[in-house]
Amino acid sequence: MIDGLIITPIRRIAIPKGDVRCLLKDGDPGFDGFGEAYCSSIEGLAVKAWKCHRRMTVNLVPIKGSTCLKVHDDRPESTTRGETWSQILSPYLCRVTIPPELWFGLQGIGTEENIVLNLASLPHDDAECDELPPESFGSPWYQ
Amino acid sequence: MIDGLIITPIRRIAIPKGDVRCLLKDGDPGFDGFGEAYCSSIEGLAVKAWKCHRRMTVNLVPIKGSTCLKVHDDRPESTTRGETWSQILSPYLCRVTIPPELWFGLQGIGTEENIVLNLASLPHDDAECDELPPESFGSPWYQ
Repeated sequence: MIDGLIITPIRRIAIPKGDVRCLLKDGDPGFDGFGEAYCSSIEGLAVKAWKCHRRMTVNLVPIKGSTCLKVHDDRPESTTRGETWSQILSPYLCRVTIPPELWFGLQGIGTEENIVLNLASLPHDDAECDELPPESFGSPWYQ
Repeated sequence: MIDGLIITPIRRIAIPKGDVRCLLKDGDPGFDGFGEAYCSSIEGLAVKAWKCHRRMTVNLVPIKGSTCLKVHDDRPESTTRGETWSQILSPYLCRVTIPPELWFGLQGIGTEENIVLNLASLPHDDAECDELPPESFGSPWYQ
């Protein structure tokens, strides 16, 4: 597991008229302020990778379909430098907190629409986000 | 339209690998701080009503299925006192900002799961939320 990455199970409150799922609360582990909430769709087998936010903490909640998330650590001082971690995300099972300076990417692997919600600590700003092509870091994607 | 209620179209950025939908940003009209994000499911034809938050600003974003939202105004000083407003919500078309002191309720009207995301200005607290039964205010629900 990559140092600083946090996987938090989504708490589900059973209610006869319809359940409530608690995604993120001020004070939760991984909460680092609120800047913007946006949903990213990923077409089947499309790869949105790699991105590295230099200041934003990302809180990802899968809400539809199925996606493969990869996180890569190239932080010089990290105990897990060089590691790549991946996990299949299914709707509402967990929230993934990605701190700044980690690289991450998403691939759609569901047959319908795949959607991940980002509850981001900062509003979107191209100036604090670096990008690299999908084939970087030598970790293969589904074909 | 009820005074203080804000309907904001969800901005959609077209991207070949999968679109991005911008739900709520710090500084947007209707943004009143962030306390908690949670998803509420509403079973088909179930009515979750009525609720009135005394301090929380609610930002509702429909993300699955179809729901009927009603808002009722009983604020003594309001120019729209006594009015009930309703709208069918479809995924990602708009965000509805409900300021404190307005009553609101949701009914599931889709045939599958109906889910609404609340980007709330405060963490959930029963002490600031009042409830009344669905038949209050004389506005009929679907049968």
